Amino acid sequence: MRRKNAKISNAVIKRLPRYRRYLIELQKKGVEKISSKDFSELIGYTASQIRQDLNNFGDFGQQGYGYSVDGLYREISAILGLDKEYRMVLIGAGNLGQAISKYAHNLTQGFKICAAFEVKPELIGKSIEGIDILDYEELVTYVEDNDIDIGIICVNQGNAQEVADRLSFAGIKGIWNFALVDLEVPGHVALESVHLSDTLHSLAYHMNDKRKHSSSK
Amino acid sequence: MRRKNAKISNAVIKRLPRYRRYLIELQKKGVEKISSKDFSELIGYTASQIRQDLNNFGDFGQQGYGYSVDGLYREISAILGLDKEYRMVLIGAGNLGQAISKYAHNLTQGFKICAAFEVKPELIGKSIEGIDILDYEELVTYVEDNDIDIGIICVNQGNAQEVADRLSFAGIKGIWNFALVDLEVPGHVALESVHLSDTLHSLAYHMNDKRKHSSSK
Repeated sequence: MRRKNAKISNAVIKRLPRYRRYLIELQKKGVEKISSKDFSELIGYTASQIRQDLNNFGDFGQQGYGYSVDGLYREISAILGLDKEYRMVLIGAGNLGQAISKYAHNLTQGFKICAAFEVKPELIGKSIEGIDILDYEELVTYVEDNDIDIGIICVNQGNAQEVADRLSFAGIKGIWNFALVDLEVPGHVALESVHLSDTLHSLAYHMNDKRKHSSSK
Repeated sequence: MRRKNAKISNAVIKRLPRYRRYLIELQKKGVEKISSKDFSELIGYTASQIRQDLNNFGDFGQQGYGYSVDGLYREISAILGLDKEYRMVLIGAGNLGQAISKYAHNLTQGFKICAAFEVKPELIGKSIEGIDILDYEELVTYVEDNDIDIGIICVNQGNAQEVADRLSFAGIKGIWNFALVDLEVPGHVALESVHLSDTLHSLAYHMNDKRKHSSSK
């Protein structure tokens, strides 16, 4: 299938995992094809939005037939790069690191945590979720020798940039950052930061906003 | 301080926690005031973007003086509703719930998890991070009797909507959803969904995109 080469907007990229989730649901229900109208009702975007989004990547769907659920799932997976396995390391095996490894271990198919790294002597040599905790000093060598794609940063905010620098130096391809800080990375390293407390603070705002609006009625 | 009443865009709201984080950093360093130029360099938004964002809420900063770090911190905290305490319940004390409670317990000041709820008999009566795990059947009564503001949904995707319905019925004000599903809630309930695997999938896309671009050079 032909792919267009134009730069895809970040907003579109952010919607693709959601499309994919709904396609998995449809697969589970045994649905083989879906019209853009039905897909639109299911996912909550307009049919024209869906067509526009998917047209970025080539011609999905056939006029008068709708989208093939399996076909679209495979295409979106391939576009996202989810048709292969990723090897990850976790840096920081404290509370946050343990939480993320527990989550990743269970819910993220295709992404494998190969090792965890710590500076604290009392944690080195132990394991979390069956993942060995190694000495942080070995990080660069390990990433280089074990074909690691992604570093998950779970250290506190004061140390996160140093970890990102070391990962970048070791040739990491992507960083999934949970430290509450905005990192700087070289242009060839992909970065995705998850600031969980930011989402909680947005929620607090919207709660107060709704209360204000309902009390002014 | 006067607040404008116009509806604030979601994009602005999403930037406020970030402003607040940088202000906390400045406070830690003992900085009392900052020019919009310096603030811009620090946070990575343009000075005009910062002025525009903050003007949504009234007149911060004085011409030729810059922003008062403490003043701006207090104002943004108040706008976000972070000048009070929130009482939360956690639904689902499995791996994901344990991860989130571990995180929330350590990093989210002003937000308190008062109880956790489960359907699994082997978990009811136990505790996680010092939080009692109660029977899910008691959820509605507990929320009503204990002035609970926020429900954290950590059940699997098939059960999440039922939990959201029950929380809404009990009068919850906000839902922080970690189940991998898009929930429907009544208009008076605020909803913030965190789809962690979506962020990992976006990262995979950007990693592949960068490789494609560099190999085509």
